[in-house]
Amino acid sequence: MSRYLNLADTLGRRIEQGLYAAGSRLPSVRDLSAEYGVSLTTVQQAYRWLEMSGLLEARPRSGWYVPMTRSASALPRMGKPTLRPIDVSEWGQIQDLLDLEREEQPVQLGRGMPDVESPSLRPLQAALAREGRHAGIASLHYSDMQGVPALREQLSRLALDAGYQAAPDSLIVTSGCQEALSCAVRALCAPGDIVAIASPSYHGMMQILKETDVQAFEIPSDPVQGISLEALELALDRWPVKAILVIPNASNPLGYTMPEHRKRGLIRLAQRFDVPIIEDDIYGDLVYGWPRPHALKALDEDGRVLLCSSFSKTLAPGLRVGWIAPGRYFDKVLRMKYTGSGPTAPLPQIAVAEFLQKGHYPAHLRRMRRQYQRQRDVMTEWVRRAFPEGTRISHPQGGFTLWIELPESFDTHALDPMLRKNGILIAHGDIFSAAGKYRNCMRLSHAAVFTPRTEWAIRAMGAAIGELLDAPLSGPRHAETQTSAS
Amino acid sequence: MSRYLNLADTLGRRIEQGLYAAGSRLPSVRDLSAEYGVSLTTVQQAYRWLEMSGLLEARPRSGWYVPMTRSASALPRMGKPTLRPIDVSEWGQIQDLLDLEREEQPVQLGRGMPDVESPSLRPLQAALAREGRHAGIASLHYSDMQGVPALREQLSRLALDAGYQAAPDSLIVTSGCQEALSCAVRALCAPGDIVAIASPSYHGMMQILKETDVQAFEIPSDPVQGISLEALELALDRWPVKAILVIPNASNPLGYTMPEHRKRGLIRLAQRFDVPIIEDDIYGDLVYGWPRPHALKALDEDGRVLLCSSFSKTLAPGLRVGWIAPGRYFDKVLRMKYTGSGPTAPLPQIAVAEFLQKGHYPAHLRRMRRQYQRQRDVMTEWVRRAFPEGTRISHPQGGFTLWIELPESFDTHALDPMLRKNGILIAHGDIFSAAGKYRNCMRLSHAAVFTPRTEWAIRAMGAAIGELLDAPLSGPRHAETQTSAS
Ligand SMILES: Cc1ncc(COP(=O)(O)O)c(C=O)c1O
Ligand SMILES: Cc1ncc(COP(=O)(O)O)c(C=O)c1O
Repeated sequence: MSRYLNLADTLGRRIEQGLYAAGSRLPSVRDLSAEYGVSLTTVQQAYRWLEMSGLLEARPRSGWYVPMTRSASALPRMGKPTLRPIDVSEWGQIQDLLDLEREEQPVQLGRGMPDVESPSLRPLQAALAREGRHAGIASLHYSDMQGVPALREQLSRLALDAGYQAAPDSLIVTSGCQEALSCAVRALCAPGDIVAIASPSYHGMMQILKETDVQAFEIPSDPVQGISLEALELALDRWPVKAILVIPNASNPLGYTMPEHRKRGLIRLAQRFDVPIIEDDIYGDLVYGWPRPHALKALDEDGRVLLCSSFSKTLAPGLRVGWIAPGRYFDKVLRMKYTGSGPTAPLPQIAVAEFLQKGHYPAHLRRMRRQYQRQRDVMTEWVRRAFPEGTRISHPQGGFTLWIELPESFDTHALDPMLRKNGILIAHGDIFSAAGKYRNCMRLSHAAVFTPRTEWAIRAMGAAIGELLDAPLSGPRHAETQTSAS
Repeated sequence: MSRYLNLADTLGRRIEQGLYAAGSRLPSVRDLSAEYGVSLTTVQQAYRWLEMSGLLEARPRSGWYVPMTRSASALPRMGKPTLRPIDVSEWGQIQDLLDLEREEQPVQLGRGMPDVESPSLRPLQAALAREGRHAGIASLHYSDMQGVPALREQLSRLALDAGYQAAPDSLIVTSGCQEALSCAVRALCAPGDIVAIASPSYHGMMQILKETDVQAFEIPSDPVQGISLEALELALDRWPVKAILVIPNASNPLGYTMPEHRKRGLIRLAQRFDVPIIEDDIYGDLVYGWPRPHALKALDEDGRVLLCSSFSKTLAPGLRVGWIAPGRYFDKVLRMKYTGSGPTAPLPQIAVAEFLQKGHYPAHLRRMRRQYQRQRDVMTEWVRRAFPEGTRISHPQGGFTLWIELPESFDTHALDPMLRKNGILIAHGDIFSAAGKYRNCMRLSHAAVFTPRTEWAIRAMGAAIGELLDAPLSGPRHAETQTSAS
């Protein structure tokens, strides 16, 4: 990481911890440069980065100050409870999302794609090359149906970090988390069955329900606490729910990590109504805080949690290496895996196992978490400045997506012509709902290292939304005034 | 290929074409060595190979002769028609088959696994290494949902060899043929629906039907002509069949390639009853004869054939690169693929595309087809000598599996203790049937280069079967007499 980002991280943490009080002046560039033994330019760059993140403001001819009132944007609101399970709505939009991918050089804010250009991934590339070169029986053969044993050994160790125990033989490697989720749903549900699902939730889950003809009972989720246990209890009480589908850690798209006591409450509910839980922990290793929060499965006493995950967000999605710890549903899930696609390709499994075994994973995660957290702050600030008043922004605890809520009357699909014209890709809110709710919301990814086009895209969207809302203009040139007003 | 195998191939073909009449003596080793400019040892090795394949016999102090009556074994019988669709039977055995895999150094005759140690695969390994080394965006990113475009270009060319046209954009890359089949079945059928399936058929298909709660209507198949059109017509006439599932080229396990006029008949039936056909063409490129037989899809006029295939038999199963040409069911199949496992891993796709694009595929296929055909002959002869009278053996037209039918009273599962003890893996006949028929049959793979243990395993099985049948003993020491008697 470059020097100035390091310094910005340190100072940023101090400001957030209140070591520099609101309204106070920070050391001069010269003093700080002496104190940390870095160049003047480095300090200036760090201060500018903190300004971009909304943590500092520059006063001409005076210096850098902690803003008096750090204008935090309001969090998104919790959705209204639904009254009944429903069939999942159309998938046309997902296709659009994928089709747009094909454009040349889009500004990709739509897809939950990690930054795969990080130098900390180099040992993985080396492992892939080595394994490709020696590709013999091991990587050309069908792998063990459950996955390459060396990888399952490593996954079993990772499980401990997430607070649960899983012997290598209790795990099944899958083609990404998507296959893990699909196997879990198909193992537990028949067409017509009902699944309770946190809302909003990852669109891939909604589409699994659709294609298996399973009905979704959307349970509203709080942007801090996660799935509403009250609404869930009501649903479980009144409907024959076959499974509960949740993303408790660094949830996609809202970014919350459920507090431990809420996780306990969720497990107790599941036990009381004797319902299995499908837990998606794909972002668990990308929670910014330390220690890593436990998986729901850590609280599981009777094998009712099916934990699904993959390396698609932590390493690279193209590996298609995921896994499932299916608890007591092992046999059925393995059958689904076997009939669905046979064993998973061994080559990437072997390479990932090597990367983990050689100890490259923790340093890589540290690096990525810092990058994603830093960029969360910067993108939040950009949105706060560029988007109209009344915009609500999530404050994710991990991962790399922001959830933006616009005034209720706004339809993000009204932006489509502008987005297409400018090659900007976003994820519209309604794909995260079975019922097509959240049309006034969007999810923006802040994974890839920002370029000037990233900021430009946010400003351009802000301006377009402002115009469409027929509200006070909030284009780039007005960012300053806009900021002080919001 | 070694010199003696080349010579054996040439002579073998002449014998089969009748250029050397039955009972006639072949040139002396010395003469042949002079004629072909090869060493005496080479000729001797070639003659011995032909003897092993049953094409020559040695007469002490006289020379090598074409046997008077080449005792062809009878072909397996066509199964009895079934009266109704049924639920597919248990999968416990499949698990056994996979578990046994884990043994050290088994004699693997059970799995449909190609020989991945062929030197003609080396360019593929090089491509994998190169791609691993440069693994950047392209191979770490999610690939295009339909699969890497460069691969689909190549697949579109291969389609022409199989007689059908498929634009790259009409194809979907899958994780092996298994995922292609699974997507096809799930796209066409709901639980409780009925599928007509050639019987016996690949066990993975039976298990897909089981896990999707689709009923199987088994249609008996002739070991030369393939699926019985008469029985199929009856089934279509009386039951609401949602799809027809067939392996028309080098079928697994029977090895037939349906004659062109039967293929036409099948298409006509499907049109008349307006039913889609799921065609598994995974062994199509491994048909021994020339030209390669057309896929059923070549005769398809209205997009009702969903062709499924992969490189698992032609290159290596560990690549997990398959594809589907889903005709008019494209949208639905793509959705199944997306929800089931997301896009397929790009790295192996890119490597395969390179292997194809550089023109390595035809030479590799030529080599493998010869190896598999040669070994078919040798294994057939071993079985003929070692197994009891009344044994029927398929005469496959491609691929690398033999189907062996024992007397009706025999249960191949009675062999299990002996197989376990000796580390011999076979595929029991009943996994190829939804109803658990064919318990008196087994499928033996002859892909991997034979070792002395291969022949030993066949003899040991033959002896054990003989004992179990309480029939005249047919152990190794009696092979000679047994042969002349059968
Ligand atoms: C919450 C969540 N689960 C699952 C997936 C699918 O992951 P994979 O690419 O490993 O199939 C994603 C990817 O976007 C996701 O965000
Ligand atoms: C006829 C047939 N179809 C499909 C498959 C599965 O192939 P893949 O390994 O490509 O999923 C096999 C493998 O045994 C097979 O024999």
